[in-house]
Amino acid sequence: MTEKNFIFSILYDYYGDLLKDSQSNIIDLYYNQDYSLSEIAEEISISRQGVYDALKRAEKSLMEYEEKIKLHYKYDKYSKAAENIISLADKIKDKIYIDTINEIKAQANKIINEG
Amino acid sequence: MTEKNFIFSILYDYYGDLLKDSQSNIIDLYYNQDYSLSEIAEEISISRQGVYDALKRAEKSLMEYEEKIKLHYKYDKYSKAAENIISLADKIKDKIYIDTINEIKAQANKIINEG
Repeated sequence: MTEKNFIFSILYDYYGDLLKDSQSNIIDLYYNQDYSLSEIAEEISISRQGVYDALKRAEKSLMEYEEKIKLHYKYDKYSKAAENIISLADKIKDKIYIDTINEIKAQANKIINEG
Repeated sequence: MTEKNFIFSILYDYYGDLLKDSQSNIIDLYYNQDYSLSEIAEEISISRQGVYDALKRAEKSLMEYEEKIKLHYKYDKYSKAAENIISLADKIKDKIYIDTINEIKAQANKIINEG
């Protein structure tokens, strides 16, 4: 087994609700709750190979959703723009604008924190 | 037939790639190309009732995708925050900050224009 790729944990946050319950459960156990394949096999009473196959199918589905919908890609762009806004706002040093700057930063943080 | 609800045109932009080709085609013709049900029926050689049923199923799928993934809802929030950032930035009147303000607005416009 190769190392766990936690991009699937992120994609699961976005698209997990589109997976079948059984696949959703396996991704959650493997990536979010750090179970091994053997532990999942025991937990849901199927073979280790069965878990592996279901996991690969679920990962493939998550990648296909991202290719079609691009939510992770878009959110990544939005949050980078919002981070740039925050560092630009910090360049404005006049105390007279402090409330405005703080509001700009609060609005940008809304974008960053609500992905 | 009730009036066309153009929320489906927006949801189609986000989730159209998840629909079956036949459903995708019907939504596109009906909402984006402004065909009537009868015109679509003639175009794809099925009954008007068949078109109507397929359209309703496709609309239901689009609504379910939005309920699960919330891309339209999220983008709406992000773009409102970005619009607030632009009007806040416009409150900073000192000429010394003009480049910074323009950069802030350009970053916010990236969010607004790339939904």
